[in-house]
Amino acid sequence: MIKIAVDAMGGDFAPEQMVKGVNIAIKNNKDLHVNLYGKEEEILKYLEKSDRVKVFNADNKLDMGEKDPVSAIRRDKELSMVKAFKAVQEKECQGAVTAGPTQGAVVAAHLVVRRMKGMKRVALCPQLPNVFGKSRILLDVGANTDIRPEHILQHAQYATIFYRETRNVENPLVGLINIGTEPGKGREQEKEVYKLLEEDPSINFYGNVEPKDALTTECDILVTDGFSGNLVMKTIEGTAKAVGTLLKQEIKKSFRSKIGALFMKKSLNNFKKTLNSEEVGGAVVFGVDGVIVKAHGNSSAYAFSKAIELCVKTIEGKVVETMKEKFLVSEDE
Amino acid sequence: MIKIAVDAMGGDFAPEQMVKGVNIAIKNNKDLHVNLYGKEEEILKYLEKSDRVKVFNADNKLDMGEKDPVSAIRRDKELSMVKAFKAVQEKECQGAVTAGPTQGAVVAAHLVVRRMKGMKRVALCPQLPNVFGKSRILLDVGANTDIRPEHILQHAQYATIFYRETRNVENPLVGLINIGTEPGKGREQEKEVYKLLEEDPSINFYGNVEPKDALTTECDILVTDGFSGNLVMKTIEGTAKAVGTLLKQEIKKSFRSKIGALFMKKSLNNFKKTLNSEEVGGAVVFGVDGVIVKAHGNSSAYAFSKAIELCVKTIEGKVVETMKEKFLVSEDE
Repeated sequence: MIKIAVDAMGGDFAPEQMVKGVNIAIKNNKDLHVNLYGKEEEILKYLEKSDRVKVFNADNKLDMGEKDPVSAIRRDKELSMVKAFKAVQEKECQGAVTAGPTQGAVVAAHLVVRRMKGMKRVALCPQLPNVFGKSRILLDVGANTDIRPEHILQHAQYATIFYRETRNVENPLVGLINIGTEPGKGREQEKEVYKLLEEDPSINFYGNVEPKDALTTECDILVTDGFSGNLVMKTIEGTAKAVGTLLKQEIKKSFRSKIGALFMKKSLNNFKKTLNSEEVGGAVVFGVDGVIVKAHGNSSAYAFSKAIELCVKTIEGKVVETMKEKFLVSEDE
Repeated sequence: MIKIAVDAMGGDFAPEQMVKGVNIAIKNNKDLHVNLYGKEEEILKYLEKSDRVKVFNADNKLDMGEKDPVSAIRRDKELSMVKAFKAVQEKECQGAVTAGPTQGAVVAAHLVVRRMKGMKRVALCPQLPNVFGKSRILLDVGANTDIRPEHILQHAQYATIFYRETRNVENPLVGLINIGTEPGKGREQEKEVYKLLEEDPSINFYGNVEPKDALTTECDILVTDGFSGNLVMKTIEGTAKAVGTLLKQEIKKSFRSKIGALFMKKSLNNFKKTLNSEEVGGAVVFGVDGVIVKAHGNSSAYAFSKAIELCVKTIEGKVVETMKEKFLVSEDE
């Protein structure tokens, strides 16, 4: 049995899509139990009856525009996200999923679930769009803007365990995001991280990866600091969107093209599907004492069910426990 | 009369495409004179006779794979790029264009043309792909990986003059690349740069720009440090390419789609054209005492002629002279 906490109120289409996502996940996985946190009367409108789902009322939700999530989270115990995370901290649930604001989720993970002992910095780790049949993960994408080389090493260790356990890849390949492929490229930080990654026997280190290869590299894991990772992720997002819009504009310009587009409807839809975030599931907060998955703000029910699936896989893979053992070993050494 | 130096040997398709690019530029601009540097006998194979073009023999060229461009440039005075840049330093020519290796061009600009007095750091400034009828510039993209806030301010000042004079935009809008739009976002560096840009009356400051909006922002100029700018530029490049390949794959999967693609041929070609670098011209090295344009390594004759055009416009706009005057004024203050 696996039991996770779900924030029903976070996300652009909450609670409807979140609750419907739970319906899907519950149907797909007979082992899964869910605690749903949010406005009970709203949730019940969409919830399909199941004795594996319990609803817990929470009156408030963390706003997307919240300027000061730290105080909001400290002050308001009625926030649905806080209640869901609290269930993880109290070991009532093994993990939690939210589609609420990213910065808020990272802060709440910190304040409510708390950092794992020995883990120096948390990291936010999304999956990159699966362009050629392989899905890479990138971290950190913004949990920490200022970070030291040894923190990036720890993130690489965590990501290795996560990727191994959730994807069934024995020795995931780790690349360092850099402005050139040769060793010695980049800032002082990249030079130091390169050395640390190279020397760590638990890491299958590939070397530097330029972001022009981020979507096609043979690496499974790409590491960098939170500022750089956020830039790379947001540039991928913006470019894919701009390119899609551009294609649409070109098609609209001529009648022949519009006819052509009719013939290509299925291909164009597949193309769009690959580039959007639906299949991805969500980003995992690495380094807190529990499994926290942050689904996209614009998640549909299907996308949200994928985020729940990712949370379940991470729990089943015992990623948090394995990482904790690793810290115990290092402390003994 | 305008006289520029051209490195005929740099670039993947040199010297043929470079020389043919000169042929195009000479035809389009009756005021233009060109000194061509490279293997004379090779150059003469492709050069159309004109009394406005002179050929100067240079036996060697800077290799793409050159690991140590600094020593190579110091040691070998027969390098075509060095000879071309030397002509700028000696005021024989007003500017130079090369499609040779980027790092080599930046280093040679430094060592041969030399930094402008008062300019603290050079910057490499390309144009982003023109996706929606507007072409933005981004800097620095890699001339300096470690840089201080006041250097980024200077780059913004330089870029403002460059954009005004080459694009006829009176008050170009300057955005700061950052991981969030609100003031106060980012590392210490972004916070300090934000303040400097906001306080400078010569800069029309927009605020922070997330890279997901880099291709669609109303800003004309985007500034950041060389490491971050390089990441953003290479991510745009890689994503656009991956997306294009993905579309091609989808089309190939079904017969109906292939038929559709035939109808859309013109649109798909326009789409491809917008995303490739041909129309862009090249990146300008800001901060040296002369106009240096670095064309793409894979430039065709047409693309190279556009890089020459950009060099001419920058010379005609007296960008270097205006920036020098600005420094004189600041020193007097």
